[in-house]
Amino acid sequence: MAVNSPVPLAADLKPVKGIALGFAQAGIKKPNRKDVLVMKLAPSATVAGVFTTNRFCAAPVQVCKAHLESPRMAAEPIRALVVNTGNANAGTGDSGLAAANATCAALAEYLSCEPSQILPFSTGVILEPLPVDKLIAGLPAAIASLDENNWFAAAEAIMTTDTQPKAASSTVVINGVTVTMTGISKGAGMIKPNMATMLGYLALDAKVSQAALDHLVKQTADVSFNCITIDGDTSTNDSFVLMATGTSSLEINEIDTPEYLELAVAVKALAQKLAHMIIRDGEGATKFISIVVEQGNSVEECRKVAYSIAHSPLVKTAFFASDPNLGRILCAVGYAGVDDLDVSKLNLYLDEVLVARHGGRNSDYREEDGQRVMQKSEITVRVELGRGDACATVWTCDLSHEYVSINADYRS
Amino acid sequence: MAVNSPVPLAADLKPVKGIALGFAQAGIKKPNRKDVLVMKLAPSATVAGVFTTNRFCAAPVQVCKAHLESPRMAAEPIRALVVNTGNANAGTGDSGLAAANATCAALAEYLSCEPSQILPFSTGVILEPLPVDKLIAGLPAAIASLDENNWFAAAEAIMTTDTQPKAASSTVVINGVTVTMTGISKGAGMIKPNMATMLGYLALDAKVSQAALDHLVKQTADVSFNCITIDGDTSTNDSFVLMATGTSSLEINEIDTPEYLELAVAVKALAQKLAHMIIRDGEGATKFISIVVEQGNSVEECRKVAYSIAHSPLVKTAFFASDPNLGRILCAVGYAGVDDLDVSKLNLYLDEVLVARHGGRNSDYREEDGQRVMQKSEITVRVELGRGDACATVWTCDLSHEYVSINADYRS
Repeated sequence: MAVNSPVPLAADLKPVKGIALGFAQAGIKKPNRKDVLVMKLAPSATVAGVFTTNRFCAAPVQVCKAHLESPRMAAEPIRALVVNTGNANAGTGDSGLAAANATCAALAEYLSCEPSQILPFSTGVILEPLPVDKLIAGLPAAIASLDENNWFAAAEAIMTTDTQPKAASSTVVINGVTVTMTGISKGAGMIKPNMATMLGYLALDAKVSQAALDHLVKQTADVSFNCITIDGDTSTNDSFVLMATGTSSLEINEIDTPEYLELAVAVKALAQKLAHMIIRDGEGATKFISIVVEQGNSVEECRKVAYSIAHSPLVKTAFFASDPNLGRILCAVGYAGVDDLDVSKLNLYLDEVLVARHGGRNSDYREEDGQRVMQKSEITVRVELGRGDACATVWTCDLSHEYVSINADYRS
Repeated sequence: MAVNSPVPLAADLKPVKGIALGFAQAGIKKPNRKDVLVMKLAPSATVAGVFTTNRFCAAPVQVCKAHLESPRMAAEPIRALVVNTGNANAGTGDSGLAAANATCAALAEYLSCEPSQILPFSTGVILEPLPVDKLIAGLPAAIASLDENNWFAAAEAIMTTDTQPKAASSTVVINGVTVTMTGISKGAGMIKPNMATMLGYLALDAKVSQAALDHLVKQTADVSFNCITIDGDTSTNDSFVLMATGTSSLEINEIDTPEYLELAVAVKALAQKLAHMIIRDGEGATKFISIVVEQGNSVEECRKVAYSIAHSPLVKTAFFASDPNLGRILCAVGYAGVDDLDVSKLNLYLDEVLVARHGGRNSDYREEDGQRVMQKSEITVRVELGRGDACATVWTCDLSHEYVSINADYRS
């Protein structure tokens, strides 16, 4: 189903020493599907996260932030994460907070640690009470199945409208030490992360200081999950968590070291892959579109223009139809909010085809060239603003009938 | 087809003394359809307009602005408007400007006036050359059919993906003088006007000074066409023009008079009706949604929140499905960009049903109440922000399969 993104093979997912994964079928929304995931970390692990900027951020997001910002974390580090699907525990007020805290307390009891050492996550329908008793009742089964080889099942356990699990692994050799990293992600709608996306987890086995990991998680989110959009809806539950289990002999304490830079490149590449998997499996997606905006005055204005194109329903339906109705792209550039944009300096490319030059139709542009590119399943839109040196890239998908069907049916 | 908006009856459209309308089938994009409209004004008329803020504003919009801002206008007032469908003449660079100017010159020649006394308008596909020869060849037929009773045909002549013509009339008695006003509008996609919408024209027969009319056109756009959105795409060609033919005995020169205020109320009501017709006939629309945001710190933040709800594809598909998945509305409020919003003060109503109270689900809210309202074809979403006294209203429609079909097929 997903655009050029085969289902990952369980055998390709590398265990990361120091993190075990267990799941349960707790019947939170529907019976007989994995809907609870527990990830248990070694005592040596450091954890850092970035979360949604939505003002209606979900109760578990509020609890995660509090636990990660707690001064106790240095002495009592995060020991486990617990994720449920089927209910977002958002827009649920004080009772939602109580439910998230009760979940942490229950899991802490089983794992003999403090509730503040647990990070809770939820995804699903907003504005409905979390069936917290069912969730807690599912914990023993999840704990019983904890295993370092469970990444594929973990990716399945966090799916909602996703058509397939999203997971990938990589390794990087730094100072002769092989660092192994594996990540999972989910999300197919309500995707326009603004800090991170709706549930991405990436674990690696180096030892990374808290300060370095805090830095890395933000840097990584900004070039991966923070550059994708399906429908422009920034979710209430977006969370991206980076876990360094500290079980390999590589130790990274400072960010201005060659080791940090090498690790950052590898982590960003894997996070981008996980982020792209979300777009490729976007609700109803038939095409994977990269939008590259160059020659801007600032990264911010390049992102503004890229998102304006990526969010235009008219641009997205034209991609769905493989129709080179490319004036719609110029229109979206024009209303992006760059008030002093001189359109006479703007060029527009579709893959290698120069469509518009100096703000007007390129006289050499032929409809059949546009048509040829539009037929492809992976397309790059490139806009040159002719103003400066900044650039930005955003990844998105098209808007199809299937998107409407999925979202008109989501709760049924 | 349009939501609770029957096709206007030609007999209900009142002629406005001092404006005659003529049309032609010029074959600009397709044969055998009215695609050119000429509106000819009495020498006593004043004209004011507001136009798109899109940086890729179309060539005719640039020409309109230049003509309306020309110091010559006092002595050589606007005498005619010419509109073509089938081609937007946008993203067409210098040759587009030349085509718009050539159109003005040709019509001026026929009407024995200066080119600067003509306002040109185009609507249709962007980034394709305007077949200006066909347009000019159609002018004699349009001029031959000029008639004060042609409002219905005029409304038909400016349609593109509209399923029906949009026109309405009203009268208001001021100081014992009956003022007659009639307007037409078009637009069904690429609708999120930011000054005005894609072609709205409203004529009235009072004599109104240029300064008062300039003021009135902005005031009116801000409470009508500037409050609607279908897909969030601000067009390259949005234009709203107010014409006071000066043929009745009522004369309005100042804006701080009771006469101006009475006229403004009537003009705004008619403009709102025309704007609502655009939403009711929005591409694929099955529902007419009013989004009222109250208790904000400023009108601007209320509009931000209202547009955030109105543009959310998830909210729009839930309306299409009649599914009270109302957490999506809270989510859209949360990412609207009101950074210091205290969600614990927020209430959400669907018509009269209190769905969320103090930021969480209202304990008395029952799913069947939400379901009952969602089944209706006209729904009001009301958000109380609990921050201040400002409010704003935005009108929109739902997102259906039909929207995708229409926009995947538009050029074929």
